[in-house]
Amino acid sequence: MNTKWLNEVHWDEQGLVPVIVQETGSNDVLMFAWMNREALTLTAQGGEAVYWSRSRCKLWRKGEESGHVQKVHEMRLDCDNDVILLKVDQAGAIACHTGRHSCFFQKLLNVGSVSGVETNWETVEPVLKEPKEIYK
Amino acid sequence: MNTKWLNEVHWDEQGLVPVIVQETGSNDVLMFAWMNREALTLTAQGGEAVYWSRSRCKLWRKGEESGHVQKVHEMRLDCDNDVILLKVDQAGAIACHTGRHSCFFQKLLNVGSVSGVETNWETVEPVLKEPKEIYK
Repeated sequence: MNTKWLNEVHWDEQGLVPVIVQETGSNDVLMFAWMNREALTLTAQGGEAVYWSRSRCKLWRKGEESGHVQKVHEMRLDCDNDVILLKVDQAGAIACHTGRHSCFFQKLLNVGSVSGVETNWETVEPVLKEPKEIYK
Repeated sequence: MNTKWLNEVHWDEQGLVPVIVQETGSNDVLMFAWMNREALTLTAQGGEAVYWSRSRCKLWRKGEESGHVQKVHEMRLDCDNDVILLKVDQAGAIACHTGRHSCFFQKLLNVGSVSGVETNWETVEPVLKEPKEIYK
């Protein structure tokens, strides 16, 4: 594999790049993750998303436990070469470890008028499958 | 303003949180930026996106020079409380400093079959307005 395209990516001090994951078709933003050089290489070679888990400090093949793999349709790089956008098909329509479609299921109430009123994040997306049914 | 919702956000070691910016309607991912506590507060209060510029180390009211302000329709927080998703109306339909609609205008060719062939990032989105016309 040629490496020119990998060298174009501006990796941060930890050798990572942030990755936004968007669903093909709906264009929903499903999740946010990180990749190192190896994860990006494996993703491009295999066509399925592989991330770097910062908490577990190891490669993480998305769906390896849950089955919720992400088939990559398109990969984009931003104007500063330091953020990646993946467009994927999401197996099971579930990207989040909570069993929801997207990780962004908490919505801020009363945006633009939060001065006086009580404001908070409210869960607005349903659990499609209980985590205990996903991670057995 | 109550601060409970601000305290729910898990700020990183630099006191920042990554922000994904998505266009209302098209659902296009426009850009990626960072906020500190003050930027998030100002965004929620004013209803227009304010970021923290890591390169300039100061608050950055999106559109302050270009006029390409972002009116915030919705604000979401992810399952780990450490990434924000903004849904915005993009003034001028231009989010990128290069004069393009989105910052994610570089596409990787040949995803999933990059073993042998020459692969690279290719610019696939047009410049809608020349930067010298935007930043006078």
